[in-house]
Amino acid sequence: MPAGPSPAPPGAEQPPFGPPLFGTMAIIGPGLIGSSLLRRARTSGWLAEKLVAIDHAPQVLARVRELGLADMVTSSLAEGVREADLVILCVPVGAVRETALAAIAHMKPGALLSDVASVRTTLGPEITAHLPPDIAYVPVHPMAGTEHSGPDAGLADLFENRWCLVVPPEGTPAEAIRKVEAFWQRCGARTREVTDSYHDQICAMVSHLPHFLAFTICETADRLSGDLRSDVLEFAASGFRDFTRIAASDPVMWRDIFLANRDILLATLERFQTEVDKMATALREEDEQAIMTRLEHGRHIRKSLIANRQA
Amino acid sequence: MPAGPSPAPPGAEQPPFGPPLFGTMAIIGPGLIGSSLLRRARTSGWLAEKLVAIDHAPQVLARVRELGLADMVTSSLAEGVREADLVILCVPVGAVRETALAAIAHMKPGALLSDVASVRTTLGPEITAHLPPDIAYVPVHPMAGTEHSGPDAGLADLFENRWCLVVPPEGTPAEAIRKVEAFWQRCGARTREVTDSYHDQICAMVSHLPHFLAFTICETADRLSGDLRSDVLEFAASGFRDFTRIAASDPVMWRDIFLANRDILLATLERFQTEVDKMATALREEDEQAIMTRLEHGRHIRKSLIANRQA
Repeated sequence: MPAGPSPAPPGAEQPPFGPPLFGTMAIIGPGLIGSSLLRRARTSGWLAEKLVAIDHAPQVLARVRELGLADMVTSSLAEGVREADLVILCVPVGAVRETALAAIAHMKPGALLSDVASVRTTLGPEITAHLPPDIAYVPVHPMAGTEHSGPDAGLADLFENRWCLVVPPEGTPAEAIRKVEAFWQRCGARTREVTDSYHDQICAMVSHLPHFLAFTICETADRLSGDLRSDVLEFAASGFRDFTRIAASDPVMWRDIFLANRDILLATLERFQTEVDKMATALREEDEQAIMTRLEHGRHIRKSLIANRQA
Repeated sequence: MPAGPSPAPPGAEQPPFGPPLFGTMAIIGPGLIGSSLLRRARTSGWLAEKLVAIDHAPQVLARVRELGLADMVTSSLAEGVREADLVILCVPVGAVRETALAAIAHMKPGALLSDVASVRTTLGPEITAHLPPDIAYVPVHPMAGTEHSGPDAGLADLFENRWCLVVPPEGTPAEAIRKVEAFWQRCGARTREVTDSYHDQICAMVSHLPHFLAFTICETADRLSGDLRSDVLEFAASGFRDFTRIAASDPVMWRDIFLANRDILLATLERFQTEVDKMATALREEDEQAIMTRLEHGRHIRKSLIANRQA
């Protein structure tokens, strides 16, 4: 594991690891994230002894079977989670609540429930309200991904040296949190525990707002008239290309994320709009000094990112 | 040369090329673009017999000399352009007008003047107004670059299979336009003649607005309070990283571009803001169908880019 910007916290799991952390692990939704976890479990042997993949789409299950990613493949949620010591929901944000409640009903006492949704405040409380006392719920958000999806898109090292934010509800047993953190450390990730609202503010800024703007700049280009529209596509320079890569992401997934983090995203957009207005005013008034100061701030922030080895 | 999205127009130059197009070529400002042209001329032998590099910064000239990029290296504009058959200004947008007027005063009759500025409507007329009848002016805009700058950043194949927009003022002799187009085709570029205002509209959309937004989202992150600000940098996800790469670009260069294309950029920003407002409204009203339609449009545009092999 290459050194990250922050050293592993004292007590973090380090290779070589001991025996598998869990007996049976069930992944609901073996897409990009879910199939990456299955691959990691398969290749490392450190995560779980038995791997179960659950999905309602027959073609996804068939593909997981072909790829040999799980020991058991099923479309039955009840059957798939029954024996599991760890159940991880890797379904779209819009399906997390419903799937979590369905899974809880069939999970065994002492089992651990997790999900990887990228929005927390609007999801967490609804799930914890239905949680029986003998099941712990430790949702996480691994800060990793690509614009691709499906079981073929997964990578065993997708989480290597990436952050995984751990967002346990208040009152979660420390042992459950520790076990989930160890799980992600064994996936190569660095873990940090944060509150749900702090999580959602960070993600609105580093992920949701950029996606919102990327989709919107594409929409703006789409509305140009005939020749100009096609020439914008033809001449698309690096700025436009970098900007819009993330607009190739799945629209359903992003609709759900935007809606689930609506209030915080709109507040973050408002902060952004304030800065856009200031910059537009500086430009309109040809205030060279103000423009320069703002561009230098922006560049400074970007350089800090590079220093953080996140670029 | 790999096949581009559009075939080379009939009559376009194709390798192997004949003897050099020009006797002496003078590059004013051997930075990223200028030193790439010198490298291309050096390695191909197709562009010019003698290469001159002009700059006011001694360290830039020293570096050009060390890299062996030119036959003559000088800080004197008068001396550098005197013998040149082709003078190309590769200076920042804010310095183009002044440098062009200074160069014209010393250029020989029959010589050709060009520049590579990324804004046209506000620059062209000021220069053509001072043009003697025996010097032709054919500005271009090669759609290529990186966020790096200086003579070390140049690449002989920087323009390979990229677009070079040619923006001659009305009344420019056809022979001068043809020669400049042939020059860029020999640099590996595909050329297209466009009007100055069409050029500036395209660039506002594909380059200037993305840079404006990238700098501004960085500024927004910079204004977050303490912990949140540093954690945004720490957890910066791929959306934020892609989005902000271009905010590492030179602030002086972008201040000048923004100011030079101010009116068209502000009009393009206004179109963008209209779409941002519509998306924010759809989100506020939880109008799933409207959000979905917009995200799908955005994704469609991005997919068109990929089909165009620009991604």
